[in-house]
Amino acid sequence: MPEFDRIQCTALHSKIMTAEQAAELIPEGANVGMSGFTGSGSPNAVPQALANRIEKLYEQGKSFKIDLWTGASTAPEIDGALAKVNGIHTRLPYQSDPIGRKRINEGSMQYIDMHLSHVAQYVWFGFFGKLDVAVIEVAGILPDGSLIPSTSVGNNKTWLDQADLVILEVNEYAPLALAGMHDIYYGTQLPPHRVPIPLTKTSDRIGEQYLRCDPNKVIAIVPTNKSDRNSAFKAPDDSSKRIAGHLIEFFKHEVKLGRLPKDLLPLQSGVGNIANAVLAGLNDGPFENLTSFTEVLQDGMLAMLRSGKLANASCTALSLSPEGEHEFMKNIDFYRDKVVLRPQEISNHPELIRRLGVIAMNAMIEADIYGNVNSTHVNGSAIMNGIGGSGDFARNAYLSIFMANSIAKNGDVSCIVPSVSHVDHTEHDVQIIVTDQGLADLRGLSPKERARSIIANCVHPDYKPLLQDYYERALFQSVGKHTPTILSEALSWHDRAQRTGSMKP
Amino acid sequence: MPEFDRIQCTALHSKIMTAEQAAELIPEGANVGMSGFTGSGSPNAVPQALANRIEKLYEQGKSFKIDLWTGASTAPEIDGALAKVNGIHTRLPYQSDPIGRKRINEGSMQYIDMHLSHVAQYVWFGFFGKLDVAVIEVAGILPDGSLIPSTSVGNNKTWLDQADLVILEVNEYAPLALAGMHDIYYGTQLPPHRVPIPLTKTSDRIGEQYLRCDPNKVIAIVPTNKSDRNSAFKAPDDSSKRIAGHLIEFFKHEVKLGRLPKDLLPLQSGVGNIANAVLAGLNDGPFENLTSFTEVLQDGMLAMLRSGKLANASCTALSLSPEGEHEFMKNIDFYRDKVVLRPQEISNHPELIRRLGVIAMNAMIEADIYGNVNSTHVNGSAIMNGIGGSGDFARNAYLSIFMANSIAKNGDVSCIVPSVSHVDHTEHDVQIIVTDQGLADLRGLSPKERARSIIANCVHPDYKPLLQDYYERALFQSVGKHTPTILSEALSWHDRAQRTGSMKP
Repeated sequence: MPEFDRIQCTALHSKIMTAEQAAELIPEGANVGMSGFTGSGSPNAVPQALANRIEKLYEQGKSFKIDLWTGASTAPEIDGALAKVNGIHTRLPYQSDPIGRKRINEGSMQYIDMHLSHVAQYVWFGFFGKLDVAVIEVAGILPDGSLIPSTSVGNNKTWLDQADLVILEVNEYAPLALAGMHDIYYGTQLPPHRVPIPLTKTSDRIGEQYLRCDPNKVIAIVPTNKSDRNSAFKAPDDSSKRIAGHLIEFFKHEVKLGRLPKDLLPLQSGVGNIANAVLAGLNDGPFENLTSFTEVLQDGMLAMLRSGKLANASCTALSLSPEGEHEFMKNIDFYRDKVVLRPQEISNHPELIRRLGVIAMNAMIEADIYGNVNSTHVNGSAIMNGIGGSGDFARNAYLSIFMANSIAKNGDVSCIVPSVSHVDHTEHDVQIIVTDQGLADLRGLSPKERARSIIANCVHPDYKPLLQDYYERALFQSVGKHTPTILSEALSWHDRAQRTGSMKP
Repeated sequence: MPEFDRIQCTALHSKIMTAEQAAELIPEGANVGMSGFTGSGSPNAVPQALANRIEKLYEQGKSFKIDLWTGASTAPEIDGALAKVNGIHTRLPYQSDPIGRKRINEGSMQYIDMHLSHVAQYVWFGFFGKLDVAVIEVAGILPDGSLIPSTSVGNNKTWLDQADLVILEVNEYAPLALAGMHDIYYGTQLPPHRVPIPLTKTSDRIGEQYLRCDPNKVIAIVPTNKSDRNSAFKAPDDSSKRIAGHLIEFFKHEVKLGRLPKDLLPLQSGVGNIANAVLAGLNDGPFENLTSFTEVLQDGMLAMLRSGKLANASCTALSLSPEGEHEFMKNIDFYRDKVVLRPQEISNHPELIRRLGVIAMNAMIEADIYGNVNSTHVNGSAIMNGIGGSGDFARNAYLSIFMANSIAKNGDVSCIVPSVSHVDHTEHDVQIIVTDQGLADLRGLSPKERARSIIANCVHPDYKPLLQDYYERALFQSVGKHTPTILSEALSWHDRAQRTGSMKP
């Protein structure tokens, strides 16, 4: 049995079983913590077997749901499969699966959309109740039972510590050469026993290579062999390239004014088309010896590590295209020197983001003229994905930047609106807004000054006269002229979009 | 000249002058950083003389404005006097003066409402431009030019470091026995040079007793003799007592479940009637050996220090009634052992709030049924005071609690609404909502579960059927059922209150 090479703790050999057998061990109503962050490092066989089990139970007229906690989003085999069979009562802290989204928005699945840095500590605090079962993908099990993590760390340390029972998927596809890339910090404590986290540079290693795991808690080991859910890399479109261009001009300007060092400060970059365009722009740009302190290592950062523009990258997960994964695995020794994979309680920790002075660059759904940002909701009521780590980074960053195309839905939606339909980042937390139209630097501006800057720089021409008109009427009509608002119109653009399909009158 | 006792740096004796002379040294358009946090430790003679100077200039048809930066709110002699003569172009980071508020809301004064922990670093980063002049109240000047701080620290360290020119008010009213109570931490740096802040207990002293000051920058010294703006202590009303009662029951419950230690965790408490009621409740309650890590030391905490319930208090300012001040000054040696006054970049630091696991208790204007909180705006457009430190504490706290009476304006306003008219604390940052009606524990709840809990526990009976009706219709009509919202009604309660004076239909 080849999997024995990867399961060196002989006491655990008796726990090797099929995914179906393992799925039978998860009790109804359990709180289940699974590995996974973006498409990386999530179990697939056990959740899929659990979904099959749940489907059969429903066919027999029985109900079966679990609460599902993860690092962040996962793969279709978890979120898709379990949502499809309506097997999740409450999902936290983040998800981006289309079937999951449908369940949440039809009201058949509860969703707690949280700051990713809060998750581990709330579980330790007991705020969500007991964690019953952990289902964790690993690359291998060492003789003492400790675990070689796979391609994401996420909340795995916390799930392994906190769960009564542990199910491990040992994924042969994950190269054992990943060992040494992870840095699992075991210095966290509950208050009042917490101490400073001794990390001062993005490349610092402050923990251990392997995940600790009590072999007595392990109830099942399921060998698997599967790739991560790798999303195809899309070449940046023109709009994203323009956003990247505005941002790089801004960085040059800040360096010139002495407000940023020549090698900038550690970069945090969200996932997606715009983020990749910005990274591509930085890879062609004038800045050298960059660093990153972020959640995921994307293709764009891989390219920057290869070119030498990026000296090192700290993250909690890989999030690569199939080509990116191929490149990463092929040159894994090169990358191991430059990449540190950390628990998300560390990658997203306010203490560290603030200390390092991170430049936070996150996508948004919409912003309003006063600089409030909506990252999560469509028209105030329907979830898109979730806040993820954007709040951890924006609040504590040296520079907090939000980016979007100025329009969406073929121009029927403006990403700059009179009032956002849901607030995830308040006016107090947003410094720079960038669209394909331009960049608004909100630092040191009052709400009215912000409105003028955002309207002048960021709004699509189709919506600029409308927004200018709203602002001027608000300035005249509003009772308070600190944040001029016409209450009856503040959400009217969203209301119109919902009724007619377009924000345009 | 008696003031020489307090001005021991003989090189500076030549700088002693009148407030009028000192006020002449402040240039038009200057960025001026003044001391002051709540009513404590602000200069009064120089700002008042500056206001007089500005008034005369206006009478001569000349314009004169400054940008005014402080710790937080100040006294009428600063904010009131300078706002009255329309002498402030931009005010930051917080103010609560009625004349200042009027200026902001009529649109004649710009206001940047900021997290208090962000202020010092943004000035260091250069985000607000150069600080031209610092006007700082101190208790005395030592032979080497270093300064004995008075009753607040606020941003004084940063203003003294960053300003080109320094004006000092030496207040004889401030007892020299304050010396030793302050802890000025000089270990902050700009990224990428930041290191962990070595504070692990509320009582830790990590800095110096005195403020450093380069005597060469000092252009004026003005002796004064005046008390702080001390607000009269109001005995808690019944509604506040009920809020306190709910909260203390909740703490007992958490201790019983093992989710809080017996001596709780460091307390942060906002200012005001409800906060004082909670402190009075804690002083009569079962918890011993409490600590606090907060912005201001109020009468309530003084009583707790005296009774021994509170072991020590860390803050950045005193905020006492006249009787409280009397008690404090009389027994200053007793209090010096138990009170640490720190810069607000430390008292409000995310790193420390999170490390210590603070219990954050802040007042709010309103919350909505999904747990978003408005701390700053009336009907979306008019500023009340500002966010102050509430965001620093709420985001990073062990428990994030918001409190209000369930109704205001004799029942014409409900503090629980369909959607808040301005968001300062998002659904991701609010765990506990308490009104006189009861307490809603939002931890581990999805938006719809939160709505049910808030409506059931916190809403005044006059508004409960209305809110229940809104929620049920939203649940039915809303396109997305994650956060059910009727866009055309979400702000209708505020719109009605603005038009008719009441939220009631």
